[in-house]
Amino acid sequence: MTQSILIAGRWRPAHASGAFRAENPATREALDEFPVSTWEDCDEAMRVASDAFQARWINDWPPERRHDPTAFAAFLAEYAARIEARKSDIVDMAHRETGLPVSPRLADVELPRTTNQLRQAAAAARDGAWALPTIDKQNNIRSMYGPIGPVIVFGPNNFPLAFNSVAGGDFAAAIAAGNPVVAKANTSHPGTTLILAQEAQAAAEKVGLAPGWIQLLYRTSHEDGERLVSDSRVGAIGYTGSRAAGLKLKAAADKAGKPIYLELSSVNPVVILPSALEERLDDIAGQFATSCLMGTGQFCTNPGLLILIAGEPTERFLETVVAKFKAAAPGTLLSANVAKSLAQGISMLIRAGAHTLVGGKPGTAAGYCHANTLLRAEGQQFLEASEALQTEMFGNASLAVVAEDIDEACLIVDQLEGNLTGCIYSHTGTADDAAYGQIAPRLRLKVGRLLNDKMPTGVAVSPAMNHGGPYPATGHPGFTAVGIPAALRRFAALQCYDNVRPHRLPPALRDK
Amino acid sequence: MTQSILIAGRWRPAHASGAFRAENPATREALDEFPVSTWEDCDEAMRVASDAFQARWINDWPPERRHDPTAFAAFLAEYAARIEARKSDIVDMAHRETGLPVSPRLADVELPRTTNQLRQAAAAARDGAWALPTIDKQNNIRSMYGPIGPVIVFGPNNFPLAFNSVAGGDFAAAIAAGNPVVAKANTSHPGTTLILAQEAQAAAEKVGLAPGWIQLLYRTSHEDGERLVSDSRVGAIGYTGSRAAGLKLKAAADKAGKPIYLELSSVNPVVILPSALEERLDDIAGQFATSCLMGTGQFCTNPGLLILIAGEPTERFLETVVAKFKAAAPGTLLSANVAKSLAQGISMLIRAGAHTLVGGKPGTAAGYCHANTLLRAEGQQFLEASEALQTEMFGNASLAVVAEDIDEACLIVDQLEGNLTGCIYSHTGTADDAAYGQIAPRLRLKVGRLLNDKMPTGVAVSPAMNHGGPYPATGHPGFTAVGIPAALRRFAALQCYDNVRPHRLPPALRDK
Repeated sequence: MTQSILIAGRWRPAHASGAFRAENPATREALDEFPVSTWEDCDEAMRVASDAFQARWINDWPPERRHDPTAFAAFLAEYAARIEARKSDIVDMAHRETGLPVSPRLADVELPRTTNQLRQAAAAARDGAWALPTIDKQNNIRSMYGPIGPVIVFGPNNFPLAFNSVAGGDFAAAIAAGNPVVAKANTSHPGTTLILAQEAQAAAEKVGLAPGWIQLLYRTSHEDGERLVSDSRVGAIGYTGSRAAGLKLKAAADKAGKPIYLELSSVNPVVILPSALEERLDDIAGQFATSCLMGTGQFCTNPGLLILIAGEPTERFLETVVAKFKAAAPGTLLSANVAKSLAQGISMLIRAGAHTLVGGKPGTAAGYCHANTLLRAEGQQFLEASEALQTEMFGNASLAVVAEDIDEACLIVDQLEGNLTGCIYSHTGTADDAAYGQIAPRLRLKVGRLLNDKMPTGVAVSPAMNHGGPYPATGHPGFTAVGIPAALRRFAALQCYDNVRPHRLPPALRDK
Repeated sequence: MTQSILIAGRWRPAHASGAFRAENPATREALDEFPVSTWEDCDEAMRVASDAFQARWINDWPPERRHDPTAFAAFLAEYAARIEARKSDIVDMAHRETGLPVSPRLADVELPRTTNQLRQAAAAARDGAWALPTIDKQNNIRSMYGPIGPVIVFGPNNFPLAFNSVAGGDFAAAIAAGNPVVAKANTSHPGTTLILAQEAQAAAEKVGLAPGWIQLLYRTSHEDGERLVSDSRVGAIGYTGSRAAGLKLKAAADKAGKPIYLELSSVNPVVILPSALEERLDDIAGQFATSCLMGTGQFCTNPGLLILIAGEPTERFLETVVAKFKAAAPGTLLSANVAKSLAQGISMLIRAGAHTLVGGKPGTAAGYCHANTLLRAEGQQFLEASEALQTEMFGNASLAVVAEDIDEACLIVDQLEGNLTGCIYSHTGTADDAAYGQIAPRLRLKVGRLLNDKMPTGVAVSPAMNHGGPYPATGHPGFTAVGIPAALRRFAALQCYDNVRPHRLPPALRDK
């Protein structure tokens, strides 16, 4: 039986052009069947979302009621509690659909991160400071951020809970800022998304959100996806996923003047300075291998590009990492597509001149997997083929680039595309200070988050976080996908009130 | 003699594909000749700007020095003082090139606004709060906004000083945020821009900004303009001007992943509620006529669309406005192009069903002008041809739409495109409260700035200002082109520091 979609507060069969099955990547066993929606479903979802948005923000309520965030905050809190109550169903299904370990990953890390994020968003909605209320009494001009309209969220494959289109960071931010959400499930974990949407819908009903404030589709044609993001009723779009698909949606949204926030591929360069290696080679090799192989390397911030300085310590470092990569059993990849893309990415780098230090071949386990892979290229090679050698290998693979010296490392950094993160490992004393001083300002301009002596995986939900960066890591370097309250402002419009009488103002803009 | 361009801190002849002459629109007398630059000039400007940016932000300076805003603040202050010292040259040239009155407009309003803006930007740069420094001590994660890279500014025709590409709001914001600027002069006032750039260059030299931090081109081909905004060395673009040209630049910039901030056309709807008219018809008619004809109607926030409710007071109101439009001598338009577009806009509205209450014909004065024009359409007509009837008539012309009742006025508001501003005039007591309650939330979602009992012209440089709005008034509803410090954040990237050692942090992110 093909699963239902959630439209207008009801679960109903899709107007489907076809169906697809979820798959257990650890066993290649087919799971439930889900519909591919036609434009009819997309159109109804947008109509319902738009009507719900209009009813919420266009009405004869007094401003106190219209701008009251209680329902949004209550929804987010209720939803978090329901996710916890249904934890084992959710985690089991996510495990089945993604191959990610139940514990600690799903049950002890990702699910708590998800509920924590929903609760932080609830607190931000209640508090209101996210909207940056600004009062100029002298001119009687006041402004704050307000809702932008229905938000479409496309979630990625690699976080079935914390970035899920109906439960993750984009979802929480869009709701907290006062917008309905049309969620497009990631097709590698539709069953997990379905369970989450059931709980979201139950929470929405309990707190009295309008039917259709949260809706769910599983899949559309590429053409309908592009039509959807450029629909006149859309407020904004949040997308996390591959660069190719993301840039197509961006082109469609840009043309229609719709803000689209993308979180695309990133190789997350890690520069290891010579004295750091001399000081603590084993420690850094251990941190790197752990970060690179964790979650089978399927993180947006996976350290995919090492930059090292030629010398004996670097050779020993690479040998140590190779040993660790050999010793670790390769994890399961999220899907057949991920396995295929990873193999293609590795091939592309090899064609561009990298050679294999370890791994490089698809694994032989029952599930989708690939041997833990470390490639190597010399600095000069990188400079000559920097575009190809920056191809993302999404999974348990990295490229180590060995530069002749710091000056060549600087040239390599100058060739980098925009990335989410960049790290520099340096001696705990001052021995690397001069090299750090050369590398850091270059890397600063290429990345959203600059780390020092720390691997980039692990993206704390902190008000100071930037999970973003220069194009093509994202579509705009001024926004973050993680971190509350800043993430809310992506789904908001700046609303100014000039000479508006006090009782007609949102309460946050009245004189205190 | 063809004037020189400013590249790399030197005035030199352009690599020109041709030349154009400025023109005095009040006399149609030809003024100085300016070059049309080829790509060679654009390329050199970008190379120089990029080198200057890199030298400023990539170096071995300690963070205290790298992040020291003193030079930017000193430049902005010095430049403001120099503009004042050369006031009469600047104002005379601007008057000659635009036909705008020397006094009060240029000398007493726009020039002081310009220097005030530069000084506010200087204060914001010095203060640093614009960058929203955020410190999470517990996780040792810190973030703030930093410079985005070379900014290209395209200034509009209607503010030769306050929005000038080398002196106006975008320029001041880009510099204060730490970026070099490549200014593209508006071709209707190149001589004014030249004088301003002379003073900017002198100020830059005095405070020791790198040569080429500020550069000036006058004109390029459309093709080179699109190539320029999509150049890999560009950080961001600020554009104020016509919708057609702006959307072409947007398409090019979007494709290259370059943030572009647009301020495009807007008809700035003004809704006048019935009891307000009964209460103070003459007063509102006076405010409207003044706002509509001021600067010959050539403001981004000119009230181009009146929405009235059918009845005897509305008829009297329109008669009063017609009398005022007749009594006022039509002002000079900024250029031959403006006069042509205005005539075309009026014709388009008439073809779409509007009829002329007053004016409608080109003027007969020596300069470019058009009779003060008020058109009328009924609500039903507007609903049937809402797209054509929202064509901007840039100049001294407005359309009055007479709705049958408040419900029809609501439908009209629902049909509006995104606008910079929207106003509602209401009875000073409570008589219009119900109608206000219907109109305001609808209008709120269509505009950046909602005004009450106040005309939209006059855009205070206030921290609470929003000179922005939903597409197609701008390219993104979350940003404002006027208002410091918010305007600075358009030209900035979010920069996060994770586990970075204290002495390597920008001072604003260190523990206090």
